[in-house]
Amino acid sequence: MIDDSLDAAHGAVSVAELHLSDELTAAGAPPASADAAEYALRLGDDALILAQQLGAWISRAPELEEDVALANIALDLLGHARSLLHHAGSFDGRSEDDLAYFRDEHEFRCAWIVEQPNGDFAQTIARQFVVATYMVELYEALRRSDDATLAAVAGKARKEVDYHRDHAVQWVLRLAGGTDESRRRLIRALDDVWPYVDELFRDDDLIDRLEGTAVRPSSLRDGFDAVVSTVFTEASLTAPEVAASAAGGRHGSHAAPLGRILAEMQVLARRYPGATW
Amino acid sequence: MIDDSLDAAHGAVSVAELHLSDELTAAGAPPASADAAEYALRLGDDALILAQQLGAWISRAPELEEDVALANIALDLLGHARSLLHHAGSFDGRSEDDLAYFRDEHEFRCAWIVEQPNGDFAQTIARQFVVATYMVELYEALRRSDDATLAAVAGKARKEVDYHRDHAVQWVLRLAGGTDESRRRLIRALDDVWPYVDELFRDDDLIDRLEGTAVRPSSLRDGFDAVVSTVFTEASLTAPEVAASAAGGRHGSHAAPLGRILAEMQVLARRYPGATW
Repeated sequence: MIDDSLDAAHGAVSVAELHLSDELTAAGAPPASADAAEYALRLGDDALILAQQLGAWISRAPELEEDVALANIALDLLGHARSLLHHAGSFDGRSEDDLAYFRDEHEFRCAWIVEQPNGDFAQTIARQFVVATYMVELYEALRRSDDATLAAVAGKARKEVDYHRDHAVQWVLRLAGGTDESRRRLIRALDDVWPYVDELFRDDDLIDRLEGTAVRPSSLRDGFDAVVSTVFTEASLTAPEVAASAAGGRHGSHAAPLGRILAEMQVLARRYPGATW
Repeated sequence: MIDDSLDAAHGAVSVAELHLSDELTAAGAPPASADAAEYALRLGDDALILAQQLGAWISRAPELEEDVALANIALDLLGHARSLLHHAGSFDGRSEDDLAYFRDEHEFRCAWIVEQPNGDFAQTIARQFVVATYMVELYEALRRSDDATLAAVAGKARKEVDYHRDHAVQWVLRLAGGTDESRRRLIRALDDVWPYVDELFRDDDLIDRLEGTAVRPSSLRDGFDAVVSTVFTEASLTAPEVAASAAGGRHGSHAAPLGRILAEMQVLARRYPGATW
């Protein structure tokens, strides 16, 4: 009854001995510079917080099929977050777990859009549509980074966020073309998230210093707008006319929602550091 | 900027037109009998409720690596649940979504162990260890079912629950051999879940009527005990001496925790049936 795989589990190294860093650190990959580490935090925190938010949908989406889709997207994002936080930590010797669980709110560098609440299903989809469309443009360009680790992460992530965008686009079309109520909810949801679009495409001093390493956010805006325009045309939607939020997530300024998200995310690791009690 | 995959998404059928039933119903697969449907509900509900519970760990586990592991396990279980509920619904024309979201508490057939709270990490691991060890024995035997759909689901699930068991075993060993505190918490967690082990191995009239189709739960106990004994010996643990709970999940009797789990799981689908508003 005790099969080979169980025996293998017994004979193998324990989980405690398996370290992600062994998987992630390509032999000889240089540590991140201070600036590249800060940039990796921005990207990694976007992925981490969005993954956490999407995880809340497991078994709560309107369809089991959709549960599976959102959980798969969350898993992809967790993978990107781990790689990016690992790279960020290579600068000063912190692990990806240190960065995920032991930073305070003002140390997080995610954009405000990923902190926006799940809301109803349409609000989650509107947020996904914006973020995934942005991420496709981002990772496509980041593949040419002169930071080999960032380029490698982008190469892998590019394929995955492509699926995330297709998933969101299909739902936007479905909700827009469904009932009066689904269309009304989608339009409201797009209005809710649109103030946070602008932040994703803002340049700053860090970006100026990382020429050739980071992607200039403003350079991604045309591609983003083209996709949005195509989808909105097909869905007979017009772009929301709302003022951009002053959102300052890239510099550690966050609104109330992030505090709640971090409280849930960090409670266990902080209460029992190392998780070995 | 608008690449082929986006174009493909536009040209392809919308999500609304993609139905799981097309994937799951093998051509010519006969619908479940009334008894087989009831049996499939027991197995499907175990998987569904456990998946929902594990989903709550996304980004909240003590390590990002563990987040990914638990999320993957939850996804596997969701897959099993969908297949099993789909089969159960083939008896009377209900969809897997009808069964997941529109049954009331007394209509659920899950065992009480999967309803037990996540608790601290050790409690989640103790629950995983029991359930995954049981599921390996269950699906191994169910592969020989004369119900072709159940046999096919079991064939696929068998490989996946093998990994779930290995994962739990490694954590049991790690916690047992860690610090005094981790060992104390694990022992407490095993004491907490052990009263609910017995229910998994109880036969009843339904099982008698399904000779050759269902697996006789009592026939799985020796295999379960052998694995537990091996692991406990290696971890220098003794089996908890606790009285078995009268747990009656297989007949729709549930305790308070399931009500809370279902409330979270079903709220969206019930508020907006069809999710198209």
